[in-house]
Amino acid sequence: MLRVSNKGRAIPESPIRKLVPYAEAAKKRGTEIFYLNIGQPDIKTPKVALDAIRNIDMEVLEYSTSNGSEQYRNKLVDYYKKHNINITNEQILVTTGGSEALYFTIASITDPQDEIIIPEPFYANYTSFSIAAGVNVVPINTSIENGFALPKIDEFEALITPRTRAILICNPGNPTGTLYSKEEIKQLKKLVVKYNLFLIADEVYREFVYTNDGHYSVMEEKGMDMNAIMIDSTSKRYSMCGARIGCVVSRNPELISTVMKMAQSRLCPPTIAQIAAEAALETPQSYFDDVKKEYIERRNILVEELLKIDGVQVVKPNGAFYCLADLPVDNADKFAKWLLESYSNNGQTVMVAPGSGFYSTPNIALSQVRIAYVLKKEKLIRAVAILKDAIEKYNAQ
Amino acid sequence: MLRVSNKGRAIPESPIRKLVPYAEAAKKRGTEIFYLNIGQPDIKTPKVALDAIRNIDMEVLEYSTSNGSEQYRNKLVDYYKKHNINITNEQILVTTGGSEALYFTIASITDPQDEIIIPEPFYANYTSFSIAAGVNVVPINTSIENGFALPKIDEFEALITPRTRAILICNPGNPTGTLYSKEEIKQLKKLVVKYNLFLIADEVYREFVYTNDGHYSVMEEKGMDMNAIMIDSTSKRYSMCGARIGCVVSRNPELISTVMKMAQSRLCPPTIAQIAAEAALETPQSYFDDVKKEYIERRNILVEELLKIDGVQVVKPNGAFYCLADLPVDNADKFAKWLLESYSNNGQTVMVAPGSGFYSTPNIALSQVRIAYVLKKEKLIRAVAILKDAIEKYNAQ
Repeated sequence: MLRVSNKGRAIPESPIRKLVPYAEAAKKRGTEIFYLNIGQPDIKTPKVALDAIRNIDMEVLEYSTSNGSEQYRNKLVDYYKKHNINITNEQILVTTGGSEALYFTIASITDPQDEIIIPEPFYANYTSFSIAAGVNVVPINTSIENGFALPKIDEFEALITPRTRAILICNPGNPTGTLYSKEEIKQLKKLVVKYNLFLIADEVYREFVYTNDGHYSVMEEKGMDMNAIMIDSTSKRYSMCGARIGCVVSRNPELISTVMKMAQSRLCPPTIAQIAAEAALETPQSYFDDVKKEYIERRNILVEELLKIDGVQVVKPNGAFYCLADLPVDNADKFAKWLLESYSNNGQTVMVAPGSGFYSTPNIALSQVRIAYVLKKEKLIRAVAILKDAIEKYNAQ
Repeated sequence: MLRVSNKGRAIPESPIRKLVPYAEAAKKRGTEIFYLNIGQPDIKTPKVALDAIRNIDMEVLEYSTSNGSEQYRNKLVDYYKKHNINITNEQILVTTGGSEALYFTIASITDPQDEIIIPEPFYANYTSFSIAAGVNVVPINTSIENGFALPKIDEFEALITPRTRAILICNPGNPTGTLYSKEEIKQLKKLVVKYNLFLIADEVYREFVYTNDGHYSVMEEKGMDMNAIMIDSTSKRYSMCGARIGCVVSRNPELISTVMKMAQSRLCPPTIAQIAAEAALETPQSYFDDVKKEYIERRNILVEELLKIDGVQVVKPNGAFYCLADLPVDNADKFAKWLLESYSNNGQTVMVAPGSGFYSTPNIALSQVRIAYVLKKEKLIRAVAILKDAIEKYNAQ
């Protein structure tokens, strides 16, 4: 066989994806699975967005401009203004999902072998995009004992080398739900300005913040216009993951023009989805209020129920819709596979994402799992009850 | 300013894009522009595709699977069968446009510094995707005198090095409209099998073939299952460039599984656009017959009118909807800019794509332009008349 020779950028299969065949086999056996492993919310997409799709008035489904439709970018300017972020439509480049925004950004600011520092645990695809770009991820560990708090700035400083190009944060964070404070953003600013680094902030969960302080964007902080890059997406905000519309936002014109060259090579982001995303900006505040209320209730129930299980450790998340829980099992990868392969409780089981997939450092946090609270409350309660029973059975083997 | 340091993969700005500001300035002055420079057809998108979008029945716009919806891939299997291409749904991976299919393929089969041989002139973004992947394009020249025919196999052979990973062809070709014969595909097969290379065929213009022989796909040719990779797209076939749905097709399971890892990292292709693409497969044959008839008439008129201009050389294209014409001007980049900046004929001018952007070898074919026949016949006639007058005025300066 002709070999595919991409040793240099072989993306590892994620431990989450590895479980999919086991889940499919379980389903075939008739087992009902509660999917706590994925970030696909059950929340309805705003009607205004779906209606815009249903009402499209065109005869030719044409390309948009490579940086996204101007009309959409103009409305995004207004959206961000409401969030205390003052930018122009030239500082926004619409992408095919937050995924493309991340890849374009990483590829634009690096040469192969450059380094990006990322607090771990982090969204597993940060590694995939870095590998695709030939860039090395330098993890900086945060721990569940410490509530996954941002590491001290001198810990970051100790990792900076001549090849360091950026610090990448997710705020609020996937998989931990950690929300960084204004003070923490200010500390990061000092560091990136001192060392002439980019500060990339993945803020796709901006609307899902459950504290009174609220969210503080890197784009709100003065004095790092050339350093700050914001990654955004409509996927979670409007529960329209399938639209694939995100954006890169920066006041650094060279960054935007470099990303633009990559954007031009792939022609444009999807046209219909941009129409939906533009319409979604008309979503009433009551939608977000309802969604936030729902997520807070789910989070509270999930954490409460999890803490009823002996030996479980969990940090109550302040944002997003995930939590990382430490389970009393020897190995969460093994346990997650066992849940699908060898266990069922009245014909039901749960699927969780092993925590190891969110760490770049090998062999740590092996008993952690990420749980997405994207199911209705009664389902969450039942899922955690199954988890409790499963842990007992698993450990009794 | 914090510099974007991507010297290693700085994508050059295409000479076509460079003209856009001049076109915008001309428009602001009130000049009407005939756009012969772009591949955005004026052909209507099939109603069945647009209706599928208007009739979407969903409450949550969810992710699809990373390799594309199974239902869509199943129907693609039937579509390809009609074109004498027998594959399974596992051998298709749906992408966000042919662009992503090309980038994923190039990145999957190479390590940085590997080489891909491409007959030039070629679609300019082949360079962009190669640069993004750190891959070197090795051009093999074809000439207008020779009708842009495929170079002799020993010319390809002379360019093969230990770093060569693939030969990439576009069939029928953009920007030349050249159609490769079955015999030529067989010759390429011998070569790629002998040297263990991939043969990537960009076949997005499959439906636009104007000879009786018809199109011969690399997927029809036996004996190179591990080598052949087909790139496809719905953009031109159904005049739905804005959908952004394409695919990678190969019988090499390692290729598909490697592309799948890249596909998983970006989650999925756009969901609504996949619904449109699936529906588009129901487009009646009469649509294609009409479109083909229209393109043949446009092509004939375009070539006929162009040949009325003294000193113009043009090859009648056998496929796609472009032709590359050699104009009696000193420099087509300068001339194309002059057309927008300094010329108008009764308030009208034309925009053409300088040919140099389609060549990797520097300083050749400097008087060529690519003309897309994506406008109605009467507009094409007027546009060529303007071109004729402009050439006279330009040379009289």
